[in-house]
Formats: sequence, structure tokens, C-alpha cells
Amino acid sequence: MPERILRAISTQTVDHRGPGFAEIGRMALSGMKDVFQTASQVFIYPSSGTGAWEAALVNTLSPGDKVVMFETGHFAMLWQRLATKIGLDAESIEGDWRGGADPQQIEDRLRADVNHEIRAVCVVHNETSTGSVSPIADIRKAIDAASHPALLIVDSISGLASLDFRFDEWGVDVCVAGSQKGLMLPPGLSFNAVSAKALERNASARHPRSYWDWQEMIGPNANGYFPYTPATNLLYGLNEAIAMLKEEGFQNVFDRHARHGRATRAAVKAWGLETLCARQGQESGVLTAVMMPEGHSADAFRAVALKHYNISFGNGLSKVADRVFRVGHLGDFNDLMLMATLSGVEMALKKAGVPHEKGGAAAALDHLVEQEA
Amino acid sequence: MPERILRAISTQTVDHRGPGFAEIGRMALSGMKDVFQTASQVFIYPSSGTGAWEAALVNTLSPGDKVVMFETGHFAMLWQRLATKIGLDAESIEGDWRGGADPQQIEDRLRADVNHEIRAVCVVHNETSTGSVSPIADIRKAIDAASHPALLIVDSISGLASLDFRFDEWGVDVCVAGSQKGLMLPPGLSFNAVSAKALERNASARHPRSYWDWQEMIGPNANGYFPYTPATNLLYGLNEAIAMLKEEGFQNVFDRHARHGRATRAAVKAWGLETLCARQGQESGVLTAVMMPEGHSADAFRAVALKHYNISFGNGLSKVADRVFRVGHLGDFNDLMLMATLSGVEMALKKAGVPHEKGGAAAALDHLVEQEA
Amino acid sequence: MPERILRAISTQTVDHRGPGFAEIGRMALSGMKDVFQTASQVFIYPSSGTGAWEAALVNTLSPGDKVVMFETGHFAMLWQRLATKIGLDAESIEGDWRGGADPQQIEDRLRADVNHEIRAVCVVHNETSTGSVSPIADIRKAIDAASHPALLIVDSISGLASLDFRFDEWGVDVCVAGSQKGLMLPPGLSFNAVSAKALERNASARHPRSYWDWQEMIGPNANGYFPYTPATNLLYGLNEAIAMLKEEGFQNVFDRHARHGRATRAAVKAWGLETLCARQGQESGVLTAVMMPEGHSADAFRAVALKHYNISFGNGLSKVADRVFRVGHLGDFNDLMLMATLSGVEMALKKAGVPHEKGGAAAALDHLVEQEA
Amino acid sequence: MPERILRAISTQTVDHRGPGFAEIGRMALSGMKDVFQTASQVFIYPSSGTGAWEAALVNTLSPGDKVVMFETGHFAMLWQRLATKIGLDAESIEGDWRGGADPQQIEDRLRADVNHEIRAVCVVHNETSTGSVSPIADIRKAIDAASHPALLIVDSISGLASLDFRFDEWGVDVCVAGSQKGLMLPPGLSFNAVSAKALERNASARHPRSYWDWQEMIGPNANGYFPYTPATNLLYGLNEAIAMLKEEGFQNVFDRHARHGRATRAAVKAWGLETLCARQGQESGVLTAVMMPEGHSADAFRAVALKHYNISFGNGLSKVADRVFRVGHLGDFNDLMLMATLSGVEMALKKAGVPHEKGGAAAALDHLVEQEA
Repeated sequence: MPERILRAISTQTVDHRGPGFAEIGRMALSGMKDVFQTASQVFIYPSSGTGAWEAALVNTLSPGDKVVMFETGHFAMLWQRLATKIGLDAESIEGDWRGGADPQQIEDRLRADVNHEIRAVCVVHNETSTGSVSPIADIRKAIDAASHPALLIVDSISGLASLDFRFDEWGVDVCVAGSQKGLMLPPGLSFNAVSAKALERNASARHPRSYWDWQEMIGPNANGYFPYTPATNLLYGLNEAIAMLKEEGFQNVFDRHARHGRATRAAVKAWGLETLCARQGQESGVLTAVMMPEGHSADAFRAVALKHYNISFGNGLSKVADRVFRVGHLGDFNDLMLMATLSGVEMALKKAGVPHEKGGAAAALDHLVEQEA
Repeated sequence: MPERILRAISTQTVDHRGPGFAEIGRMALSGMKDVFQTASQVFIYPSSGTGAWEAALVNTLSPGDKVVMFETGHFAMLWQRLATKIGLDAESIEGDWRGGADPQQIEDRLRADVNHEIRAVCVVHNETSTGSVSPIADIRKAIDAASHPALLIVDSISGLASLDFRFDEWGVDVCVAGSQKGLMLPPGLSFNAVSAKALERNASARHPRSYWDWQEMIGPNANGYFPYTPATNLLYGLNEAIAMLKEEGFQNVFDRHARHGRATRAAVKAWGLETLCARQGQESGVLTAVMMPEGHSADAFRAVALKHYNISFGNGLSKVADRVFRVGHLGDFNDLMLMATLSGVEMALKKAGVPHEKGGAAAALDHLVEQEA
Repeated sequence: MPERILRAISTQTVDHRGPGFAEIGRMALSGMKDVFQTASQVFIYPSSGTGAWEAALVNTLSPGDKVVMFETGHFAMLWQRLATKIGLDAESIEGDWRGGADPQQIEDRLRADVNHEIRAVCVVHNETSTGSVSPIADIRKAIDAASHPALLIVDSISGLASLDFRFDEWGVDVCVAGSQKGLMLPPGLSFNAVSAKALERNASARHPRSYWDWQEMIGPNANGYFPYTPATNLLYGLNEAIAMLKEEGFQNVFDRHARHGRATRAAVKAWGLETLCARQGQESGVLTAVMMPEGHSADAFRAVALKHYNISFGNGLSKVADRVFRVGHLGDFNDLMLMATLSGVEMALKKAGVPHEKGGAAAALDHLVEQEA
Repeated sequence: MPERILRAISTQTVDHRGPGFAEIGRMALSGMKDVFQTASQVFIYPSSGTGAWEAALVNTLSPGDKVVMFETGHFAMLWQRLATKIGLDAESIEGDWRGGADPQQIEDRLRADVNHEIRAVCVVHNETSTGSVSPIADIRKAIDAASHPALLIVDSISGLASLDFRFDEWGVDVCVAGSQKGLMLPPGLSFNAVSAKALERNASARHPRSYWDWQEMIGPNANGYFPYTPATNLLYGLNEAIAMLKEEGFQNVFDRHARHGRATRAAVKAWGLETLCARQGQESGVLTAVMMPEGHSADAFRAVALKHYNISFGNGLSKVADRVFRVGHLGDFNDLMLMATLSGVEMALKKAGVPHEKGGAAAALDHLVEQEA
């Protein structure tokens, strides 16, 4: 987390009903529209991303409504579980965890739904458990090709502000996001970007709601205020984060993540290892999940890395538990930090006795110099 | 907000799934039990207090359930509005805003409910809009006297950690609290303390819920973890706040607030003004709402205080808009800060041409010296 | 110390030889010229004010040189001790500690020095031990009236940036200052403002010197650098402090201190007590030294104030030890902080059983409202 | 600079004459004895290291005294310049800048000084301009072998707290140090560790002094106080730094630096380049100066590294200007930070078109894994 943001969040809390607050609120709400690349509406919750998952559903659906959710990985499965829990009929399209959501499978499913019982298609943009990215624009096209009225609801909790995300251009209806990934903040803020169509559905959606209710937000938000106490200090941090992103330039931020993803894959390839994401063009610039050689424990490797080199890699979740480790390259990250990270992988592979070819870090180094930003 | 807490929340965020987090979570959960004076269960939400209002209801009630809520003031009314909005049958017992909830009226209402349709009685402990405190122990006795099975759900968002609150001894079933008052934190955390009886009701309560669901919390909480991403940096601040409260001693904290309340009322009396709370023994140690002389605008007075002395007083809400101003004396507050505050009131009264007797600040000064802590 | 400054000094240290440093150095050096109200030269030392006392002398004098120092109080005496220690012939003009330096006595002494053996007159601008201010402009006139070539060296360690100080207009030759009073910084930086005449004397002054040597500074300073490692983080704070002073406006800062001094004296008078400074027009806006009633210990009173009200008053030094206590009203200070301070005095007087009239704080309150800034 | 230390220095400043200060002062003074590995006396100045250079000389010598200083590099030359400037007869023993001070040359010079006119031998422990370390224990033996009474005065400004430094065991008389290197603080504090013999010399040393005078310090220091205002906030940081060093363990700190020095030299060798330090066993664990291939500008290379990889290498000073670049590996530094740094060197060498063999970073990686701490 950048020091600059930690400082911002430790500023004295102002009264969220006082005149000084409006500008803070307006900056945050308007800045987030730029981040989502939307001219539509953005709502900010004092909650973690899980709350925004729930908010997206309860604002647009009624008890018992059918939704289709693509199983890109662990987080897609958790979202489906939540949907079921709050009383929706949440159907899953099975995936192999080695790529993003498949537009063709979605189109096929929607075409089969001749009565238009499916009210929403839910897709994870950047699946944190696998390092794969779903082709959101193509999924919108698939829905349209099926001439289906279902809403397109996207989770970009770990993608937004690191990967290009074009809410308006791609025709997304609701996007769910959180503060603690690309926005480089501590957890505690979450977001719903909302299209005109989704707002329209909101009027007839009968799921009981109050805290998450978009309608309560619209009025006060117009003047920079919130219907209840916001997480003021995290909003300070949010405004600072948006300023940092704009200083670097959104496109530069996206390019940097993409380049670091490529350099990381160059290292993985040089080590003779395989990434979990197997679909070309769907590899994430946010993180790379690396598969362990057969017979080697990813968690044992991770423990060595933590103990000897004080570096913490993400663990494999549910279906790929102990079989992959995940290398993050997101947020406030530069070439030397990537080299430190990949050197850490190589040192730990060697230390842990995991079979690999030498030279992964060196391959990444070459890639970075040759493909200068 | 104490500098010590602002520093705590700006510490680097640790991984909320990593081994280092458990101790942070355990400290927070166990420390909050001490704050609530309970051996039962406490849940922590990454949300503002409004979320914990909702959580208390959706975890214990089913759609259409009847609840009785006492109108102590503005915040009690907002809570009733929320209850109605999420589909409960929320009945209000009217109040005059000049004191806490009346146990007798509650007992009468419950006795009349011969079929036990009322599922919960909701009461605000410290009503921030009026500066009155409800006698929670007496309300429990009233419920028991009526032999009624309704749950006692209490909002102590602005009372907890400033006023004595004995969850177990008083027989409260759910207590709703927030981070930004007596706990001296920025907003963004909220709490439910929960009795065994309330947990039992939870099993049969059919309101759809996921984010707020207590059942999801119990398992991970046992080891210091949370079912979804917590607001880690605010938890750092929470642990620091609890440490500060324990260093001073809870009883000393309560005594300090009570003494500051008395000194403030001595000042108000000396000015020849009246407090909004008219019931002796129910005046709050957290804040004092002062009634303006007839024909004088409280908001005009507040504007003078802000402009000339850079001090911000709370405004009158809904029924008492522009008729009262509210003086806070809570959190990390000492005798000299109270004298600064009351001097600010007196200077602004004089500056604004509000009719008053001189000597209020001096009366408070005398009270503070004579009634040494 | 303002939070804003504490934050500034905790920013990451940059390389003091790198390109990014020049702007920091230039801002500090140029900003300090504005603070001293001079177009001449200012030097900044990584040292406490005592170092700048020494620097002023070793840069302008030679071993055995005679200097005349006016005994305004404890700090003037300490400076004389230092001058003697480094080998100067430091003569003192005796004072009664109840006002600033007396221009007439200085003029008389200089007229008597027909051979012009006196090389410098040293005067303390704001004597922190007594709360008196010396009339610097009049002292320059006195030197000129005596047609004497002695340099005028002034210590404004505790006056600068709180009281008006006009280096050029008043004809000061060297002014000594420090970071920890009106500049609101932690200790660790000190200053010499230097006239053209003083720089000329520097060429022939033979006291050995290196660290303090102005000549070493001039070259690197011209580009924003220093001849040796500066206290970089305190320079961050200095630039922030100067920005704060400019935002408020220097004249407003001076007026505020003067008004707070008057309100404090109104309180002292109402209590029936006496200030140590007895010369009208020479009372300090930075601090007020209050004399205890005969037979009462100032230190016992100070102990009561610290114990019961957590407020720390300055002690009486050397000649007035235990006979006065000193009330500071400097730096980042507003009306309410003054009221808190004076309420603290009155509470402690009462608590400690010191004979006094009631109503000092109230008198100050009246003064502040009537003489609005 | 570690965040932990930046936080410490931004704590509110306490009164350096108040009761709360003594513990801070005592901790700092006693902790520094542990750092110097001495049971003798340590003095702390609010000044940069240059001030402590001056203090060491003015406290032990008289005007015109002869001292011998070994030219290990740029900083040794600066120190000699200072000595000359303050009136000492400072003789230099010429060096080639490719290693530490030579005990034999020192012994020869002292033996030749049959009248014992030389009052002190001055040596730089870790020469920052070259990355060489002088064998201090051997130099003490050389002085003793010559039966010469000269004091041994050592500058360990950039070595202390990174390299083993045994003040008592090695028989050093005065050691000069600063805050901004191994102690990981911002600049602004400096130190003199002082032997009994040096204190004895102090009694007869006639150089005029006040700010630097050890005698003034001894009394107040005994109780944790200082004779004049200390740089309080930097003392907070100093105590934090000492705590960090003790948590890691001094020996572990020294081993870490040594290991990082070896890994860096493995990289330099693999690149086919040469280090400036050519004397085996005298290479510094604090920094490594690398010689550029003939015909290539070190400063041009440094500019490429800064521009493309945002990493700043030290420049060559005076005799080796533009011919070397310096790689720091000191302070709060771990294996991954070293890998980031060395990857940065290799990327910049490639980017700048400097002839070199590939694989330096990889060689360092191997060294680090094989020679685990």
C-alpha cells in the first residue's frame, strides 16, 4: 500500500454532514466514474467487496429470480453461493478454471432460455484464484446475439484500476468493485457502477433492502453526501488513489500491468513451469497463478519463500489447493519490484528443491529491458 | 480523534487470510466483549452503524414481523424507517423527545399484546438528537414484568464506551454499535453484541441475508478470522482504542463523561438556558442539546460559532431543527477541552447577540474543581 | 506542534546532493528571508538555537573581542556565559528582569567606549524567562546616536514568527533564531540572518570556525544546497511551517499573538496577580510570566496544574525560580486554546489554594469577544 | 528509511526539560553505548556528522596541533580540509583510494615522529567514496607498536551499525558517527564516543569550544538531559532504530551486510567489471563502488538507471568522478531488495549499452541461496 495513501487515511475525520465534506464526496463519486469509464451512476458503500456483490443482486432482482453465473474459479463460486443464500435461483455454467468466461457457452445458455427466465448473467472479470480475465465486451455481444434481456453483472473487484475496464463501451449493467486491489486502499470501501437499464430494473426489483439500496443514495450523492455515515477516512484515501492513477495515466497503468504480466510469464516459461491460465490473451496483468510440478506441494514452497525470503505468495484455492501458487504484480508496482518478486520465486524454488530450469528472473529482466514501457 | 488511533489505522495492511491476522482479529473480538460487558458473542462488520441496525433486525426477524420502537428522537425514527423499508411491521411508541424511552409505556404496550405478536422491542440507548439516555435495565424489567418473549434490541451507537453499558447484566438481546463515537475511530466499523436467546431466534428468522449473517461469522471468528475481507486498518485502530479505554479504566471513562455532562448543565443553567432533556437522571454524558431562547435561530448561532471561533456544534434535527444546538463532550476529552468548548459557547452567544446570563463557563469551571474526578 | 508539520517531517528523506533537493533548499532559504523580513542573507544550521548563538559570534568576532550583552533575563545570561566560554570579553549590562533591554543604557555604555573597543551589542528580542520584549529598533537608534560601529546581534529564538521582526528596517546585523518556537517545528534547526556589514566583518573575524562558517554556506546555498548534510526532514517541516504562516498572513499571526497576550494580562489582572514584565508596551505576545503571591510556591502550583489538569506551565528560572510560572500562548494557537489554558490556570489556582480573585478566565473571554481579531 | 522510524520521529515533541524526557535521553545515550560496543562515554549532538568531526578535534586538541590523517578517499580529504580550516596542522598520508588505511604506513610515520609532535591519528573506518574498510584494530596495534601517545580518532559515520565496530576492544579514542546511515534515521544527529584517555586530553585541549564541549554534556547526560535543546524528535527515531537493531541482533546485522557485499561482488565479477576496492578483506558491506569500462561515463549510466528504472546510484567523487558508480546495500535491506538493486544495475547496463557479460544478478541470486544467512 503506498505510503501516500496511508497518510491520506490518517487525516483527521471531518463531519460527514458538514459543509467541508461535500467536496470530498463529490471528488470520490466523480473520480470513480472516470475509473469505471462511465457517464452513468456509481455508488460507494462502507463495506467490503462482498457487500457490493450482494448490493448488485438485491438492487436488481426479486426473491426466486434466476441468474446464470460462469464458474471461472473460486471467487465466481463464492458469489454463486451468496446468490443462492439470499434466495436467488443461481445456476452455474461449469468452467475448467484455466481461462475466463466463455461467451459462446453464455450465448448458448441464453438462446435456450426462450421464456427469458434468466434475469441476469454474472461474470467475474479478473478471477483472482486463477489469473484469468473474462472477455467482457464479447460476453455483452453474446447476450445481444441471443437477443436476451438479462442484465450483465460483472465482478471486477480485483481487475478495476489495473486492467482496462470500459463500463459504458462494453455495455455492462452493474459492475462490482472494491478498494483493496487496483485502488491500493485498505479494505472497507466497495462500489457498484450502474447502467440506466439496471436502475430501471431497480424500480421493480422486490428484494428487501435498505443499506444497499441505490435509491437512498441518489439524492444525497448528487450533492456529495451519503444517506448514512460513510467511511470518511477511506474516502480520503480513495481520492488520493484516484489522483495517483490520473498522474500516471490510466492507459499507462494498464500497460504497466500487461507488461509485468508478460515478463512474469517469460520467467515461468524459462523455469519450465506452466501457468494455470491456459487461454492465450486471457492471462491477467494483475496476478499469475503458477502450477507446481507434479508431486510438489505449492504450500510447502510458499512456506519456504515466506521463511527464507520474507515473501508471501497467494495460495491455491479449493479445486487447485496446494497445486498452484499465485504471484501478484498489481497496484503500486514497478520494474524493480517485479524483479525482486521474481527473484524471490527463483530463490525459493531453488531453496525448496523444486525442479526447475535456472534463468527465469533473467528472462524477465531481458523482457523488461527489451519491451520498455 | 486521538493521534494515537490515526497512527494505528495508517499501519501497513496485512493479509487478512495470513497467519499474522488471527491475533488482530482475536484481540478485536475479545476486546469488544469487554466493552459490551458480555460473555456472549460480538460480531464486527465492515460497515457504518446503519448496517448494524439492519443486521440486528435481519438476523432475528422474518418478513412482516411486528416490532415496537420507542420514539426517543430523530435516530429512533430513522431506525423505524429502516425497519419498515426492509419489510417489518414497525410500530412506534410516540415520545416527546425530552427524555429516554419510558419503561411503563413499553410494559403497557406489551401487556396489550396478548398474542405475543411483537417479536422485538427496539430502543435507542443514547439518543444523539436530544442528549437523553434510556433506562435499559428498567426496560428489560418492564418486558419481564409483562412476561413477554420479545427480544430487547438496543442501539448504543453513540453511547457505548462513553456510558456504562451492561449487556449481560441488563439482559439485552442485541446491541447495535459503531466505531465513530465512544470508540474514537473513523466511521467504517459496526457491531452486534448478541445474546444466546437472539442467536436462537436467528435459527428460525427467515429474512434473507448473507453479508450480515451471524452464522457465517461464528466459525471463522472463533479463530480470529472473518468470512469475508474485514476493514483491516480500522481493526488496528479498534485494538488501539480498546487499549486506551483499558488504560484509563472503563469506570473512569464513564465517570469522566458523567462529570462533564454535569459541568455542561451547570453552564447551561448559569446562562439561563434550558437543556432539551428534561427528565432528571436521563441526561447524557455524551452530549448536551441546548434550547435556544424563543425567537432565536440555533443555526444562525452555530454559524457564528463556526466563523468566529472555529467550533462546530451539532444542529437540531427534524422536530427540533433550528431550535437546539448540540454540544458534544465525548471520546478523548478532558477538563480543559470542555472549558474550551463551553468558553466557545459563551463567546458565540455573546457574539451572536443571543440573550443569556454571563458566567456559564465560570460555573462549569467551579463545578469541575469542586467535583474533582 | 501542528499535525501538518509532524506529517511533513515524516516524509521519506531525499538525497541532499540529488537534483530533487535544490527546490527544497531554495524554498527554505528564501522563505526564511520573508520570515526575517530581509533581503540580505539567511543561513540554516542543523543544530539547536545554542549553535546559532555561537555561530553569530564566531563569524563576526576574534578571540578576546569585547561584546556588551544586556541582561534581560536567564537566556541573556546563558548567552553571555557562552560568549565568555569561547574566549570573548563579554560584559553584561545589568537588568531587573522586568522588561526588555534599555536603549538609553546601551547608548550610555557605547558613548563611554571612546576607543570603540566594543565590537558588538547583543540583545535578546523576546526573553523567554520573563515574557518581556526588547525595543530593537530603538536599540539600533541608540547605537547610531552614539555613532558607534558595534554590530547589533539579536537573539529572536523565541520571538521570530510570532512577533513582528524587521531585520532590514530595524538595522539588525545578525539575528539568531531556532525552529522550535514560532516556527512550530521540533528542535534541530537554527538560523543566522546576516547583514552586509556583518558579512564584511566576517572576512576579518579570526575566531576559528568550520561548521558554523558562513563563507562555506554562501556558494552551495545559492543553488539550494548545503556544504554538508542538512537536517533534511526538518527542512520539510520548515517549508510547511512557512506555508502555514503565509496562509494566515504574517501580520495576522503577529496580531493574534498580541491579542492573546492582552487577553492573558486581562485574566492576570482580574485574578489580582501581577505579571513579571512591568514595562508597558514591552509585554510579550508569546508568553506571560505571572508572579505568585508572596509566600506561595510557583512550582507547587505548577505541580497541581500538571497533576489535576494535565497542563504544563513553564517554571521560573534562576533569579525568579519558584516565584513565577510562565503561560505560553504561541505557535499554532487559537482563542479556544487560550481559553482552555487560562481556565487551566484558574482551576489550578483554586485547586492549589492560591489566593486570587475569581473571574480571570471570564475577563479574558470578554476581552476576546470585544476585541475580535 | 524504515516507516517505523519515520513514524517515531513524527510523534509529538515533549518538553526536553520536563520529567518525561529523562527516560528518552537515557535510552538514547545508553543504547548508543551498545552500538559503539563501549562502556565509556557517548555524546549526542543535534548536528550533522560534519559537526561531530569538528567536535572530535576541538575537544582533544589545541590550536596548531599536528594530526595525521590517512587519505582513504574523498571523505578523508574533506575531514583533513576541516582540520586545517580550524587551525590544526593536518598532515595527510597519501593513499590510492583502492583500500582502507594502511597500518604499516601509519606505524612508519609515527616511528619517525620521535618528538611525539603528532597528537592524533585520524582514520575513516568505512570510506563511502570507495567502498573500502580500514582495519581499525590493526591501526591501534601499529600505534602501540610505535609506542606513540597519539590519539586514535576514527570516523565511522557510514560504518557504524552496519559493520562490526568495537570501540573498547579495538582501543579507539574518539569515534565520530552520524544518524543517517546504519542507524537508518534522517540526518540531524551526530555522535562522539570517547575513551577515558580522550577525556583526559580534553582537560588540557585549548581549542575554544562551547556547543561541542564534552564537559558541558557530562553532567546533564548523567540524568538523561542535555545542556541545550536536543533534536527531540530525532531522538525518538534513534531509540526506535536501536530497538530495531537489537531485535535483529547486532551480529545478524553485520552478517547480513557482509553477505550482501559478497553477493554484490559476485554480480560485479559476473558482469566482467571491477570494484574500486582492490584490497581483499577490505571490501565494504555497506556499499560497493564499481568501475566503468574504459571510455564509458559512469554519470551517463547513472542517468539511464534513474530515468528508466527509477533507481539512484551514488556518483564518483573528486579523483574518481564519472569513473565509478556506487551501489548501496545498507540499513533496512533484505535479499529481495538487493536483487531488485542488482537487477536495476543489470537492466541499466543493458539499456545504456555499457559492455558487460549477462548474468550478474543471477550470480548474486545463486550466492544468496547458497550462502543462506
